[in-house]
Amino acid sequence: MKDTARQQSWKIQTELPVEYEIVESHGLFDPENPDLLSLPGGRRSTGTRLVVLDHSVEELYGAEIRGYFSKNRVMVDYLTLPGSEENKSIERVLEVVNKLNDVGTNRLSSPPIVIGGGVVADVVGLAASLYRRGIPFVRVPTTLLGQVDVSVAAKSGINYGGYRNRLGAYTPPPRTLIDRGFLATVPDRQLRNGMGEIFKMALIKDLRLFELLEEYGPELIATRFQDPDSTSTSLPGTVADEVIGRAIAGMAEELQPNLWEKDLQRSVDYGHSFSPLVEMRALPELLHGEAVAMDCVFSALIAAGRGLIGSAQLERIVAVARRMGLEPSHPLFCDVALVLDGLADTVRHRDGRQNLPMLTGIGQVCFLNDVTENEIERACAGMGRLLDANAARPEQCIGSEL
Amino acid sequence: MKDTARQQSWKIQTELPVEYEIVESHGLFDPENPDLLSLPGGRRSTGTRLVVLDHSVEELYGAEIRGYFSKNRVMVDYLTLPGSEENKSIERVLEVVNKLNDVGTNRLSSPPIVIGGGVVADVVGLAASLYRRGIPFVRVPTTLLGQVDVSVAAKSGINYGGYRNRLGAYTPPPRTLIDRGFLATVPDRQLRNGMGEIFKMALIKDLRLFELLEEYGPELIATRFQDPDSTSTSLPGTVADEVIGRAIAGMAEELQPNLWEKDLQRSVDYGHSFSPLVEMRALPELLHGEAVAMDCVFSALIAAGRGLIGSAQLERIVAVARRMGLEPSHPLFCDVALVLDGLADTVRHRDGRQNLPMLTGIGQVCFLNDVTENEIERACAGMGRLLDANAARPEQCIGSEL
Ligand SMILES: NC(=O)c1ccc[n+]([C@@H]2O[C@H](COP(=O)([O-])OP(=O)(O)OC[C@H]3O[C@@H](n4cnc5c(N)ncnc54)[C@H](O)[C@@H]3O)[C@@H](O)[C@H]2O)c1
Ligand SMILES: NC(=O)c1ccc[n+]([C@@H]2O[C@H](COP(=O)([O-])OP(=O)(O)OC[C@H]3O[C@@H](n4cnc5c(N)ncnc54)[C@H](O)[C@@H]3O)[C@@H](O)[C@H]2O)c1
Repeated sequence: MKDTARQQSWKIQTELPVEYEIVESHGLFDPENPDLLSLPGGRRSTGTRLVVLDHSVEELYGAEIRGYFSKNRVMVDYLTLPGSEENKSIERVLEVVNKLNDVGTNRLSSPPIVIGGGVVADVVGLAASLYRRGIPFVRVPTTLLGQVDVSVAAKSGINYGGYRNRLGAYTPPPRTLIDRGFLATVPDRQLRNGMGEIFKMALIKDLRLFELLEEYGPELIATRFQDPDSTSTSLPGTVADEVIGRAIAGMAEELQPNLWEKDLQRSVDYGHSFSPLVEMRALPELLHGEAVAMDCVFSALIAAGRGLIGSAQLERIVAVARRMGLEPSHPLFCDVALVLDGLADTVRHRDGRQNLPMLTGIGQVCFLNDVTENEIERACAGMGRLLDANAARPEQCIGSEL
Repeated sequence: MKDTARQQSWKIQTELPVEYEIVESHGLFDPENPDLLSLPGGRRSTGTRLVVLDHSVEELYGAEIRGYFSKNRVMVDYLTLPGSEENKSIERVLEVVNKLNDVGTNRLSSPPIVIGGGVVADVVGLAASLYRRGIPFVRVPTTLLGQVDVSVAAKSGINYGGYRNRLGAYTPPPRTLIDRGFLATVPDRQLRNGMGEIFKMALIKDLRLFELLEEYGPELIATRFQDPDSTSTSLPGTVADEVIGRAIAGMAEELQPNLWEKDLQRSVDYGHSFSPLVEMRALPELLHGEAVAMDCVFSALIAAGRGLIGSAQLERIVAVARRMGLEPSHPLFCDVALVLDGLADTVRHRDGRQNLPMLTGIGQVCFLNDVTENEIERACAGMGRLLDANAARPEQCIGSEL
């Protein structure tokens, strides 16, 4: 090594300011509602805008959407993409890119709009983040999971090589628009799936939200989060807004100080430690929120095993999941080898540490880094008993068997 | 639109601090030199690290590199990728991703290392920026273009759908290591190609650098930027370092305040306004720096046409390009339709404005937004005369014909 003394070096130091908003907007396709047209910062769009529709959205709202843009005389072009997990693929991302090329999308002033569930939001989000090394886009989530979780996210991701969200980016759309009206057409199972993420949020930081789910969960699903018909339900008119609002606010609060996940201890990772691999292996059987809910229970079993929570709390958690029609367990969660594999990849993702969020009560977490194989085995066995209980007596108590 | 009053909204505001360094390191593969091993921030790496080698680097330095890591007892795995523009593709990015999956790369502590030209640096840079939504990597540029330009870059990019760098990201590696020793084996034409970007940097902001190129350009190429043998050359020993250093420093100065190109008036875009499409159309005939040098001349013709620079300056610019063995012109630059097409895409990239950096002297630029078709036509004609001059009398003056 010669000339050490003469070696030059240069440093670049700067910061990227990031700002984005999530805005409720009722009646999004009312031609009088300008929310879909206005660009963040108030600038006017130029050129043709690409509107990407989830295929269910196309079916259910396609005519209305086309009417909206044509009445507003905006130049748009459409692309329809299928939802569901297996379509969160590089091929779909490139399909969007091809279409952006066709449309001639600008760097800043013709942001594409994506209207659909979390899958198309992630696909378009990644395409936009790559296109010209990043163009803005507008996100309109149309599923419950999309509205309470994807809506706040800065990141996008696609599955690759058998791993969930193996490829992705941190590039939030400047604006996300939430119209609860979409939930009227979301299938029951998809609503329950969205409840999985709300359930997680309640468990890690919001006892009040947990109580709302406990009390109104089934009715919220039955009324599809729409304004209740006061004669047929006891659901207060404000609950749907409160539940969605608390879920979004909780998520925003957790993300803002740690948007790029420099801190790998993230309480919002609760429910996302063991489930990613299980979810991928179970594809297409399990939905994301369903797998998350199971992981919430699995982690609660570990917490209960350590005495971090009591068996009454564990039972209450399992009961609320069940009340919302979310299965607390699945055979793959009883497969010790698979769960350990899943944890191993999570540990790589958390850079060599477990950083496992663990409940210390309903609405509060700590982080563990010393969960043993033995504890995992016991939790897997607990998941087995929940399965049996499910099959036999859905309301059976399992806490006492721990 | 009902309930406007009740609409909720949330805002996320934060900033991402970004810091990265470019460090000269002589004798990078000397087993005593720790620079390739140490992680930015001084942390230790864990797990296996992927080392991606350009195929020429594999041939020329493969044994030395393997020796370095094995003597230092670091767990590494290797992937060799071809350089050259047609390999800046999504397929190559996914090849790297597959290998990162095989190796089991962590989120933070096993950053891959890429050793090669701008092409493999861009490919690995994009793969790293996507993998787990972004992992750090270490960049070791081995071509002149790589050392003076890619080295400072925060961005990566691949070609797609016939467009240069259509997909990419802004995710600088925390550390880039520069060892001038690599240039000893870089082929002449590749050195000249790197001179293209130094030429650009000189033109936009550094008269001293321009004069160094004017005086020593050919000798720097002949000695391959290595320490000169004092008996056989008049080249002062410090010139190679000064030229590389000024080019890097100039680039760093331009990038730091505008890393994410929020300001679309960028003087470093000089030479990159008309050339991208020409370069893609001419593939594999033209190298990037060669096309950039031609665009520098093309833009100088426009500037001279407007009287922003005089014909003596124009001639001096053309003469320096020629002295370094860079052709000032190419038949595709005489194709008005193609050049206009290229400009149209550049305008989309600059969000609807031309923002054309134009010389107002050697070492200074202004920005134009009103360059007409007519001026483009005249510049194309000028490029035609340069071609003829090239064929006939290489030193012929062309400025007077404008
Ligand atoms: N980017 C992030 O940070 C983030 C956060 C959470 C979840 N996600 C991702 O979101 C995905 C799950 O999203 P999802 O649950 O919305 O799934 P999804 O996008 O597959 O949508 C579910 C189904 O609902 C249909 N649908 C959508 N809107 C509808 C409507 N209004 N009416 C009727 N049907 C409708 C879709 O066609 C689809 O069949 C997962 O891949 C997950 O990783 C991403
Ligand atoms: N990311 C950025 O901001 C940025 C900036 C400038 C250029 N670039 C990109 O860089 C690319 C051009 O880079 P390049 O000119 O290095 O091309 P390259 O990577 O294709 O390398 C040129 C050739 O030199 C060979 N080579 C590399 N190192 C060698 C060595 N030490 N000895 C002998 N041969 C060697 C390679 O195998 C290849 O054949 C372009 O695609 C350009 O867009 C990117």
